[in-house]
Amino acid sequence: MDLNALRTANPGHWRRATAIRALTLDAVAAANSGHSGMPMGMADVATVLFERHMKFDAANPAWPDRDRFVLSAGHGSMLLYSLLHLTGYPEMTLEQIKNFRQLGAITAGHPEYGHAPGIETTTGPLGQGIATAVGMAIAEEIQRARYTKKIVDHYTYVIAGDGCLMEGVSQEAIGLAGKLELSHLIVLWDDNGITIDGKVEISDVTDQKQRFLASGWDVLEVDGHDPEAIDAAIAKAKTGKKPTMIACKTHIALGHAAQDTSKGHGALTNAEQLLAAKAAYGWDHGAFEIPADVKSEWEAIGARGAAERAEWEARLAALGASKRAEFERALAGDAPKRLSATIKRLKREISEGQPSMATRKSSETVLKAINPIMAETIGGSADLTGSNNTLTGDMGVFEPGNRKGRYIYYGIREHGMAAAMNGMALHGGARAYGGTFMCFTDYARPAMRLSALMGVPATYVMTHDSIGLGEDGPTHQPVEHLAMMRATPNFNVFRPADTVETAEAWELALTSKSTPAMLSLTRQNVPTLRTTHTNKNQVAQGGYVLADAEGKRMAILMATGSEVAIAMEARDLLQQDGIGTRVVSMPCWELFEETDEAYRRRVLPGGPVRVAVEAGIRFGWDRWLFGERGKREKSGFVGMHDFGASAPADVLYEHFGITPQAIADKVKSLL
Amino acid sequence: MDLNALRTANPGHWRRATAIRALTLDAVAAANSGHSGMPMGMADVATVLFERHMKFDAANPAWPDRDRFVLSAGHGSMLLYSLLHLTGYPEMTLEQIKNFRQLGAITAGHPEYGHAPGIETTTGPLGQGIATAVGMAIAEEIQRARYTKKIVDHYTYVIAGDGCLMEGVSQEAIGLAGKLELSHLIVLWDDNGITIDGKVEISDVTDQKQRFLASGWDVLEVDGHDPEAIDAAIAKAKTGKKPTMIACKTHIALGHAAQDTSKGHGALTNAEQLLAAKAAYGWDHGAFEIPADVKSEWEAIGARGAAERAEWEARLAALGASKRAEFERALAGDAPKRLSATIKRLKREISEGQPSMATRKSSETVLKAINPIMAETIGGSADLTGSNNTLTGDMGVFEPGNRKGRYIYYGIREHGMAAAMNGMALHGGARAYGGTFMCFTDYARPAMRLSALMGVPATYVMTHDSIGLGEDGPTHQPVEHLAMMRATPNFNVFRPADTVETAEAWELALTSKSTPAMLSLTRQNVPTLRTTHTNKNQVAQGGYVLADAEGKRMAILMATGSEVAIAMEARDLLQQDGIGTRVVSMPCWELFEETDEAYRRRVLPGGPVRVAVEAGIRFGWDRWLFGERGKREKSGFVGMHDFGASAPADVLYEHFGITPQAIADKVKSLL
Repeated sequence: MDLNALRTANPGHWRRATAIRALTLDAVAAANSGHSGMPMGMADVATVLFERHMKFDAANPAWPDRDRFVLSAGHGSMLLYSLLHLTGYPEMTLEQIKNFRQLGAITAGHPEYGHAPGIETTTGPLGQGIATAVGMAIAEEIQRARYTKKIVDHYTYVIAGDGCLMEGVSQEAIGLAGKLELSHLIVLWDDNGITIDGKVEISDVTDQKQRFLASGWDVLEVDGHDPEAIDAAIAKAKTGKKPTMIACKTHIALGHAAQDTSKGHGALTNAEQLLAAKAAYGWDHGAFEIPADVKSEWEAIGARGAAERAEWEARLAALGASKRAEFERALAGDAPKRLSATIKRLKREISEGQPSMATRKSSETVLKAINPIMAETIGGSADLTGSNNTLTGDMGVFEPGNRKGRYIYYGIREHGMAAAMNGMALHGGARAYGGTFMCFTDYARPAMRLSALMGVPATYVMTHDSIGLGEDGPTHQPVEHLAMMRATPNFNVFRPADTVETAEAWELALTSKSTPAMLSLTRQNVPTLRTTHTNKNQVAQGGYVLADAEGKRMAILMATGSEVAIAMEARDLLQQDGIGTRVVSMPCWELFEETDEAYRRRVLPGGPVRVAVEAGIRFGWDRWLFGERGKREKSGFVGMHDFGASAPADVLYEHFGITPQAIADKVKSLL
Repeated sequence: MDLNALRTANPGHWRRATAIRALTLDAVAAANSGHSGMPMGMADVATVLFERHMKFDAANPAWPDRDRFVLSAGHGSMLLYSLLHLTGYPEMTLEQIKNFRQLGAITAGHPEYGHAPGIETTTGPLGQGIATAVGMAIAEEIQRARYTKKIVDHYTYVIAGDGCLMEGVSQEAIGLAGKLELSHLIVLWDDNGITIDGKVEISDVTDQKQRFLASGWDVLEVDGHDPEAIDAAIAKAKTGKKPTMIACKTHIALGHAAQDTSKGHGALTNAEQLLAAKAAYGWDHGAFEIPADVKSEWEAIGARGAAERAEWEARLAALGASKRAEFERALAGDAPKRLSATIKRLKREISEGQPSMATRKSSETVLKAINPIMAETIGGSADLTGSNNTLTGDMGVFEPGNRKGRYIYYGIREHGMAAAMNGMALHGGARAYGGTFMCFTDYARPAMRLSALMGVPATYVMTHDSIGLGEDGPTHQPVEHLAMMRATPNFNVFRPADTVETAEAWELALTSKSTPAMLSLTRQNVPTLRTTHTNKNQVAQGGYVLADAEGKRMAILMATGSEVAIAMEARDLLQQDGIGTRVVSMPCWELFEETDEAYRRRVLPGGPVRVAVEAGIRFGWDRWLFGERGKREKSGFVGMHDFGASAPADVLYEHFGITPQAIADKVKSLL
């Protein structure tokens, strides 16, 4: 690569782009770790994007109509931090850059959502960024249709590397975006031909351009070091009717001794080579030193959007009061005032009518009440709409011909769905839920973890939540998945026992601002157990006394979901034998743990025998059996001990011994 | 679709294919659940494949050189069961077909590996079959190179549906197979244009043919109801130099009222419609009735390979004794006799030399000793070779130009890697291990669960197993993943504390026949703790006393992996204060649970204070803190309570309070 030619051809651009490269080299050297090559290779593309296209106002990073920039190749975090610092985002000080990857700095190894404005999403686990961006673009389309271009009209730009495109989730994202014709989604592929293990060709021969074309994208190709070509390609992409992938041919670690090698991917910390690279750039400034003229050019870029933002504010102010309030309410993630009353009314109806139904059906019943009053919900399913019961009549299907539709046929793409849900939530103004079979939590896991890590209130509607799904067998029967998700920090696992609890769980999920939720729902019918209406949301306590012992309290049965009804039957058997038995429904361990000790002592007093009942494996239950005043020798578990089997649900419950009689016997053996 | 024309054109074929359709209809009707449409749509393709191409001998289903048939669209299990029954696999009786989806039957809702010969892998979770098949084809290539075509020369056929191809893992599989030029892999795509939610076009516009071409496959296209065209396409595919995808245009639920609709995907149980479909087929036989002539034609197909198998047996017998023994040993999954001595020698060296090293490096040290004496190992990494330390010098890289290579550059494809590992193990003669960062267990989860469910001894080399990885931050720092995998039945999680334990863990993983394993390995250095050599494999007990209390035993510290050394330092502090402290290393909970009560009582006696130390979340530890004679009020946990952070490892350990002093303080607070 002839750096001189590049510099001579576009001297101003070159200096601005070099500022990114220099900051990257200096920060990685200071941290003695990190990833230098990507920011150095993509600095030209990023510079052109921010200088000539990105709609943003560094002084007001939360401007709702800003373009979104997603660094899917998150290891190249110094690219993003450099851009934020250079353009003048107040939080991204030079001090933060100098503290790259140090404790307490906002400049974490990979971009962490919430650390600083301008970091639109957490990236690093490859492929997540591009898949999350699809959700951002969906949210933008829907809100553009609802509020018109005057209020919502922005692009989502993604920088993705070969790693992102090799991850399977990228195919789900590409397929979904192609089908949905998300024309405001523009992916800049860092086509540098290098991965950690060597050249891309040692593990892949995929023609990425052909692959994107195959899924309905527009594809452009540029020299990633030619600013004019980059500019023209982005300009063209913005006018397309489809999502666009721009293949940017670049040199990883441009200008460094490690250029075009896998070594260039990582931390380039050799002092001599660092100086040599800077010299090759014609950059004779000290570490972390940005010449004033370059900084001020960048700051002008950062301020470029200020006027447009002011105009936008005026347009928003001119919007009718109620429409504006609705826009702002949804953006703030506040539930509508009516939600609480709606849920209460529904609970009362259910407590009175006492239907027997599957909780997946309960969930649909709740959604039918909620969706019409929460226009910000965006629902969907990974090709199991009729099984997950996620579609309500008022939503309409989101598709190219109906941009106001709020239901998404995600196809068989659990992972892509989960990441898109994150993207919608991050974008703002949208509250996403999506369904699949609970066992396929496995497929969605990487994005579900990011929901939790980012504190994004996505709601996972996971139906067919146990052996109760019956004949589909062990590949479809979750046994460890409750434990998996309960083990995940900042994630609420709800396993409601009936329709009332399902309504309460939904209320909690839809009012959460920073914790994602999973609703673990049955395929099989369960009776209504909450037959006395309470305005109070009992699920909010996580665990509560559903039925107390009559006579002396000798046993406590703890159960969740479909097993609460079985525990209630066991209680009948035990009471008949004079064994006073309390049933505690524990729909959400996480919330129960957050209650105060005194409350938990009332619910789970010491003394009585304790038996936990759940059609999942025991892992984690010891906390409630032995902890909280429990005694090892006076506690037992009725549930699964291995994978399930293929047979009708009632046969399986009998086979695996999850029955009222088995519970009663267990209690008696412990008395 | 004009069924009469189809029937008239190929009357014999039609009757054989109709037998599959009729059995499917009858079995689904009897079960009152299942998936009818796929077997009905793909019956012609499957009939041609088995009749004219599949190399198999129904009477000897374990023939190592048989072709492998993978029903990736596993919900269509009746297609497979019908084929196995019709061709005369002894276990697949008509009684089993009649008990489709019932408890104890081998005819589970989805094909379950181990239930019956001829079920080559468990499928149902979509995309797994095609990705697993890639591993089978890799194993075949490697063994063909090693043993020549005389001994190993077979194809892997896959039937995949739209669901399989929409799942992200399919892209990883396609990319990997394309790069590796797995010419013996042939995918038959059931191109019926239908998914559960409706037409494929409601969620996808991908041109699958173009997509496969983009990744280096040959692509053919046929009418999936035209036997001659199907035959010609398969014949052509077999001679190609690349993997081949044959797009088979079919009608789901052919001939049924639900044909070409999403309703046709599921259980078609309406009695009238069932009879109408049979009438349309010209099939006037009762439920489960197969005319003798049709059955005998099918049985002839099932016996077609007998002669070829006999010839193969003769060729195997003619192989040199040692080569044959090696072939058969690897096929049986037996470790070489030398393995035990090799591990012992290595352990002795380490105990004497007492190196301080990261356990990922320890793992490499072990692999350097093992790989040269276990030719059946096939290693790899998802683009983290230098970080996972998975490549040893003797292996050679498996690629089109080097079919004897045993190391695979999987690219950034954790999920595809895991599924391929399953495929290699299922194929036989191969023992697969693969590495990635432990946090990316999330990506590989669906296939890892299948390893456990199938009882396939794949080994997951999961490095960078805690906050100890440092600056890459919380996206790369597992905190819940130990719990996730410990919660999974039939899965051994090894977290070795030093190089000796790492060697012992590898020995257990490599001698396992039916349980997969994960090695949770550090990025950071740890000291050698097993400084006194023992021939005995201590990790086999799961937990053991590493250092006993001096004086009165007042505290027991339980720890795993890198935290064992920290616990040992805490022990020093406590002993200095006269607090007798035992340290129990617990590298594998699952194996510890399997030891007898008396042993566990010796290791974890009641009485002393117990503190568990692990740089992961507490979830699951209560079993060992409160159970096994522990007391709630005398136990504590030192570890993670939330996600990690980005900073150097030692700073993070200090920040999160996982230090010798914190442990000692915790113990003192409990005394």
